[in-house]
Amino acid sequence: MAVTLNCDMGESFGLYQVGDDVGMMPIIDVANVACGFHASDPDHMHAAVRGAKANGVKIGAHPGLPDIQGFGRREMRMTRDEVRNAIIYQVGALAGFLKAEGVELHHIKPHGSLYFMAMQQEAIAHGVCDAAEVFGVPLFGMTGTLHEKIYQQRGIPFVAEFYADLDYDASGKLILTRVHDAKDPTEMAERCVRAISKGEGTAQDGSFFPVRCETICVHSDTPNAIEIARAVRAAIAPWH
Amino acid sequence: MAVTLNCDMGESFGLYQVGDDVGMMPIIDVANVACGFHASDPDHMHAAVRGAKANGVKIGAHPGLPDIQGFGRREMRMTRDEVRNAIIYQVGALAGFLKAEGVELHHIKPHGSLYFMAMQQEAIAHGVCDAAEVFGVPLFGMTGTLHEKIYQQRGIPFVAEFYADLDYDASGKLILTRVHDAKDPTEMAERCVRAISKGEGTAQDGSFFPVRCETICVHSDTPNAIEIARAVRAAIAPWH
Amino acid sequence: MAVTLNCDMGESFGLYQVGDDVGMMPIIDVANVACGFHASDPDHMHAAVRGAKANGVKIGAHPGLPDIQGFGRREMRMTRDEVRNAIIYQVGALAGFLKAEGVELHHIKPHGSLYFMAMQQEAIAHGVCDAAEVFGVPLFGMTGTLHEKIYQQRGIPFVAEFYADLDYDASGKLILTRVHDAKDPTEMAERCVRAISKGEGTAQDGSFFPVRCETICVHSDTPNAIEIARAVRAAIAPWH
Amino acid sequence: MAVTLNCDMGESFGLYQVGDDVGMMPIIDVANVACGFHASDPDHMHAAVRGAKANGVKIGAHPGLPDIQGFGRREMRMTRDEVRNAIIYQVGALAGFLKAEGVELHHIKPHGSLYFMAMQQEAIAHGVCDAAEVFGVPLFGMTGTLHEKIYQQRGIPFVAEFYADLDYDASGKLILTRVHDAKDPTEMAERCVRAISKGEGTAQDGSFFPVRCETICVHSDTPNAIEIARAVRAAIAPWH
Repeated sequence: MAVTLNCDMGESFGLYQVGDDVGMMPIIDVANVACGFHASDPDHMHAAVRGAKANGVKIGAHPGLPDIQGFGRREMRMTRDEVRNAIIYQVGALAGFLKAEGVELHHIKPHGSLYFMAMQQEAIAHGVCDAAEVFGVPLFGMTGTLHEKIYQQRGIPFVAEFYADLDYDASGKLILTRVHDAKDPTEMAERCVRAISKGEGTAQDGSFFPVRCETICVHSDTPNAIEIARAVRAAIAPWH
Repeated sequence: MAVTLNCDMGESFGLYQVGDDVGMMPIIDVANVACGFHASDPDHMHAAVRGAKANGVKIGAHPGLPDIQGFGRREMRMTRDEVRNAIIYQVGALAGFLKAEGVELHHIKPHGSLYFMAMQQEAIAHGVCDAAEVFGVPLFGMTGTLHEKIYQQRGIPFVAEFYADLDYDASGKLILTRVHDAKDPTEMAERCVRAISKGEGTAQDGSFFPVRCETICVHSDTPNAIEIARAVRAAIAPWH
Repeated sequence: MAVTLNCDMGESFGLYQVGDDVGMMPIIDVANVACGFHASDPDHMHAAVRGAKANGVKIGAHPGLPDIQGFGRREMRMTRDEVRNAIIYQVGALAGFLKAEGVELHHIKPHGSLYFMAMQQEAIAHGVCDAAEVFGVPLFGMTGTLHEKIYQQRGIPFVAEFYADLDYDASGKLILTRVHDAKDPTEMAERCVRAISKGEGTAQDGSFFPVRCETICVHSDTPNAIEIARAVRAAIAPWH
Repeated sequence: MAVTLNCDMGESFGLYQVGDDVGMMPIIDVANVACGFHASDPDHMHAAVRGAKANGVKIGAHPGLPDIQGFGRREMRMTRDEVRNAIIYQVGALAGFLKAEGVELHHIKPHGSLYFMAMQQEAIAHGVCDAAEVFGVPLFGMTGTLHEKIYQQRGIPFVAEFYADLDYDASGKLILTRVHDAKDPTEMAERCVRAISKGEGTAQDGSFFPVRCETICVHSDTPNAIEIARAVRAAIAPWH
């Protein structure tokens, strides 16, 4: 089974630029396009969808919390219905641009704190499922978490994701940071290969934890994201 | 041909309530649901769509300028592409809630200043058409205006609208106000009957101007909107 | 020592109205004016400041979380510095309108979830103090809480507040709700008198808890806020 | 009389970075700090104020239209009172951070479309004055314009500004663009020297127009802003 490379895209906002979408598109297989709540706006979504289509990149929705100032990385108290409706709204908005370009929606991947809240709160994971069922697409997530359990109980296809540019603790939990640091591309590529070939993630302390990896994520706001993506893409070629 | 009654709905925002959607739904035929830019939010859009469906009311999108504080009634300088993308985003978002309820999108009606900008600027009218073509639905508008001309040149089905609760000047132009005042229901209903039966609109000075009327609009933020809607609905029964 | 009556004011936003500020001003002693993050906007702040001044009502700042859709009642993860800066920004903005009217800032009262976060997280309570020190005014808060302890450690004058229109549990904790319900004015007034005269708050289960009460709060978005305020005002006359 | 160099600063927003404030501060005399409506947020305002203070740079307020997505460069229909209140709010907010650092407010310079609207509409120019009077500081503006005329009629001290990095037409009007392009630093510096020494601005077509220049502005979002600022600073040394 092929392992894909995905990246969060279209996260610029008005005159504010983040990430090199033009440089990244030719390297990746799947784009998670921001939907205007944590980042992006209609013009940048339009550009991201057209850029992905031109490069044959599949397009998923990347809905987030309603907080552009915090880039969707500040946890907010939300109800299941608020999460459901916020995701339906954002995915629907993206689907408008997909319809304009004649492209299908590939998946949904919640962004930032919303992704994490679905690991910690059942109601949030169910709200994510409520929205995913409307669109009938898979959810991206992390193995061994509450969100995986609930997504699968609900019968939503689940795609297991490994992060190429974030740190994990020894128990396999992602270490959340508001701002992403540059990482060594070679080391990150090796971690991805290990995750695919041995089912082992590498923790910050050098220890390993069990992991499943069907897609690898790079963040476009990581400072050297393009270099990391290229190194990972080359290293995972045998499984791609 | 039947004349319908339409109303802008779902314009509450968070804890802020505007309009009596529950009271209005049984009276109207068509709801123009706000899409989160000039009013509404995902939770109120969800409620408006469910309320309309439960009452057999057809649902159109009511996209506006990105300005909740100004309720989309402060003109903004926008390019054709910005208008196109802002509308695709908003209509797509609403279409997400329609998909969840298994209901079709009926039409698009730009809100407030966006509606008026499309009367005055060709580029804006074309941006509206660019978005309407993506969804393949009719546009609501005013007869004898630039936007009617361009919508029809572009081949977008056009539904001619008459306002039950706003004032017109002697040339048939709507008189824009940021806040809507209460109106006499009987007088407003008589104006609607005249518009339908004689093709004459009534101006603020009592004179008449030529008008075509396929649908009649009441605004949910007009203070006595329910009374006006009931009076109009009863009066137009012969053409309904 | 006089017990005052305070109310959150200026919480309308654009065309959206909440609360009857005109009716409430003559009843209260102190207005907590919303500052544009959880509610209000520059025009409503201006109106609230002028209304308070005209009625001889003292004016405090009522800064909240940056979330108008959630009315500042959805907890957000914030750092101490983010809280400090968000409050300085909001109080400064209000101080601009006070300067225009030649009125002094009376106090700061954090709104909604920000008020509660300062009860539960030391960093947030310190962020509130960091901002209060800049303006040199007292903080309103609840007795027996973490925020009282920290505000007092920091040497910020503390004004103990009792809520006339919210429910407490048996341990004296406020029961948070996103939407406020109408309450019986007579019963609420009796609770206030008991709080002042006996130092006892009344819990939802009818039991009592120790409380200190230097000012009584009514919320303008409680449906029958005016009736409650009038009843409380009359009942506390002996201590006023 | 000394000619100063000013720059719009603090225009980053959340994780979004624009301009190199750290690099620019040592070069300039005066910072126009964005106030959260067209750009910036409380954290970036705090950082800009501290950075300016540390470099001995004077601090003015740079209030804009409420439109971060459009960076305050999309004209909006506003009333005099809306402009007045929007500016009082923003300048007050900045004044909070100045109070925290013990620094005085130096001036007010409206941003982007607000600056231009005050050149074209009397009501807007008066709204700007209404706010400036509250704070008792000078206004920056362009000579030969409606806003200069009204600011001076109102008795507000006026500081005449020349733009180092924008194009003028032959009549001396600025040519507005949403995005700023890089410019040749040497050529821009020569234009500034000509403006100071001969009172002549250089139009896009090479012709000259009369101009008065008491301060020179560089925009931090111009791609090579630092190079332009350094070249201008060196060239205007005799008048500095």
